[in-house]
Amino acid sequence: MCQPPAVGLSITLSVLAESADASAALVIPSSPVGAPSDVEAVRAFARECDVVTFDHEHVPAEVLAALEADGVILHPSRAALVFAQDKLAMRRRLTDIGIACPAWAQVRDAASLQAFGDEVGWPVIVKTPRGYDGKGVRVVGSPDEVADWLSDVARDSAAYAAAASDELLGDELLGDELLGDELLGGGPLAAGLLAEEKVDFVRELAMLVVRSPSGQAGAWPVVETVQTGGICTQVLAPAPGLDPELSAVATAAGLRIAGELGVTGVMAVEMFEVRDPQTGNPAYLVNELAMRPHNSGHWTIDGAVTSQFEQHLRAVLDLPLGDTSPRAPWTVMGNVLGGDHPQLYPTYRHLLARDPGLKIHLYGKGVRPGRTIGHVNVSGSDLDDLRARASHASDFLQGVITE
Amino acid sequence: MCQPPAVGLSITLSVLAESADASAALVIPSSPVGAPSDVEAVRAFARECDVVTFDHEHVPAEVLAALEADGVILHPSRAALVFAQDKLAMRRRLTDIGIACPAWAQVRDAASLQAFGDEVGWPVIVKTPRGYDGKGVRVVGSPDEVADWLSDVARDSAAYAAAASDELLGDELLGDELLGDELLGGGPLAAGLLAEEKVDFVRELAMLVVRSPSGQAGAWPVVETVQTGGICTQVLAPAPGLDPELSAVATAAGLRIAGELGVTGVMAVEMFEVRDPQTGNPAYLVNELAMRPHNSGHWTIDGAVTSQFEQHLRAVLDLPLGDTSPRAPWTVMGNVLGGDHPQLYPTYRHLLARDPGLKIHLYGKGVRPGRTIGHVNVSGSDLDDLRARASHASDFLQGVITE
Repeated sequence: MCQPPAVGLSITLSVLAESADASAALVIPSSPVGAPSDVEAVRAFARECDVVTFDHEHVPAEVLAALEADGVILHPSRAALVFAQDKLAMRRRLTDIGIACPAWAQVRDAASLQAFGDEVGWPVIVKTPRGYDGKGVRVVGSPDEVADWLSDVARDSAAYAAAASDELLGDELLGDELLGDELLGGGPLAAGLLAEEKVDFVRELAMLVVRSPSGQAGAWPVVETVQTGGICTQVLAPAPGLDPELSAVATAAGLRIAGELGVTGVMAVEMFEVRDPQTGNPAYLVNELAMRPHNSGHWTIDGAVTSQFEQHLRAVLDLPLGDTSPRAPWTVMGNVLGGDHPQLYPTYRHLLARDPGLKIHLYGKGVRPGRTIGHVNVSGSDLDDLRARASHASDFLQGVITE
Repeated sequence: MCQPPAVGLSITLSVLAESADASAALVIPSSPVGAPSDVEAVRAFARECDVVTFDHEHVPAEVLAALEADGVILHPSRAALVFAQDKLAMRRRLTDIGIACPAWAQVRDAASLQAFGDEVGWPVIVKTPRGYDGKGVRVVGSPDEVADWLSDVARDSAAYAAAASDELLGDELLGDELLGDELLGGGPLAAGLLAEEKVDFVRELAMLVVRSPSGQAGAWPVVETVQTGGICTQVLAPAPGLDPELSAVATAAGLRIAGELGVTGVMAVEMFEVRDPQTGNPAYLVNELAMRPHNSGHWTIDGAVTSQFEQHLRAVLDLPLGDTSPRAPWTVMGNVLGGDHPQLYPTYRHLLARDPGLKIHLYGKGVRPGRTIGHVNVSGSDLDDLRARASHASDFLQGVITE
């Protein structure tokens, strides 16, 4: 999705593609095939690039380190990206700079998890620090429900302790200030698990911000991400009825995170809207960070003067940033999940005919049930109408409805 | 410029590129190199395509005929395309179906040109039927000023007569009903020249229409094309202060032309706005046709719900057409010509910083003075402001101004 704005800006993209038929390889002429974990493939690819950026966060730390050692310009940098890769690192850093988060704890055994749960109330959310896309997340009523993960923590911690004692680091072993990235030598769970209170939220919001290496920053309006069964099905831009004060505070928080963490490029900040327990006023708690163009920002392709993809390119190349204003009072984005239609073409044709104002974006991926294979955008002034049209399009492409 | 919407629609493009570094080849993975006049190269290319369309009209009739003989689906078809390739064919057909045109005549010698000029008044415009982009057009005060062309006409007509008499077509030789396409065996000027009255117009307008093979059609608002020194420098969408009656009549004319000529895909109809000599009311005269996305429609990339490039793809694939509504009260497109800056990057960077709402579209072409190398779009509600911003951007990129 970076290719369309790259065409206009005369920026030549290359992509290290997972396979020759990966979505990006279908539309970018220079698309060598290689895995993000293959350090030599990534290094060879990066040598041909002026700037390297990412469309997901799952690039091993040692690969990023090798690139930085080669003098490759990475945006975001390894130092920033760790906060999107490691949820314990993110929670500690955000807490340090005063960003509102759910109550949380780094837990390494059943006793510490039990104590946390007793303090904030059960059930609690337990996350593996490097899980993503809802993987590595459980809602648990007692430590027994993550006994398998806690046993992995014990194993990985022991491996780290053994490795680290060889380097005479014994005293600092497994102190709470040590985080996943530093502990990977001991296995992915050496630093423990992240336990969080289960937030009683009003709704979920997302803030999309951008920051360039020279420090220019920008933000799009705060949006509502509508979740159905734990999956984001629709994004409403801007978030309907959002308290103006909360909008300003959340925007300031997003920009502060980008600046403090040294983020370059686009960053999505997923938030819960809550009531302040003291005042009853609307407030936010930060849920997750993503340091790249994000699903919650797909509305900007058709709904904003500058899309998140154009803006990400501008930012990582340190070009001046574009206007983030909406083009219409409302834009609704509807995710399209793979469903019962192995062939999308007939439904897609029907939708184009039914709604000439619908903007359909398909990703050229194979259709598998539950996989996000595209999205639709509709812009206008009647939010209810836009939501109905986006819902219809998503449901129809997915096979939930048949007309 | 078809690649961005193709990405979203999951349409895979291939381009027969003039060279490996042609603009389109830079952004389309499948881009074999070949000349449009190389019939075998074009046939081999077309065998891999579901549908073939064109980004210029200069494809020889025999190449089009070979493709049609191979069963290739061409949009527009050869039968339609001839009216955009041959100005005599276009004038005769439009006159036959009652579309308002400047007074015109098919002239083969000095005497017939003299008679036409004496009738409509000198100077007159003389065009070679297959000229394009302002080439093959002269404003002349007497037949002497096209003596060279008239001598070519005599030569090509004689060659045709010799060839045709072998096929016993003597009686029909050079009848006025014979047009360029049928006479090419005799050379490009066998049918003669097109003489037209020099129209005293108020301004120039353009109508962009689209028609699909199954007959669905649509139109964008009529625009004004601002000309400076014979070159279109700016497009104002919609045309400011356009008489609503004229808008409706011009739109109906564009749609009628598309239907009667069997056009498929996008067609631009360049028009003069004139005063009806009888009533004094605003009226139109058709100047030229282009059967492809056209410079006068570049405003639609940012200024309309469906751009001309997306619409052209939908049309040639016989997909349902998209909404042609503007996204803003006004959009101004400014052409960027090659100028004194061989390296665009520094000026481009300055403009992004100066005007975050400017949408810059560069074509990846080498910079040569006078060559169109890109365009800018700006949308909003203050036309004067938009015009000033577009002019600044065009002039600055071109080196006419330096800040």
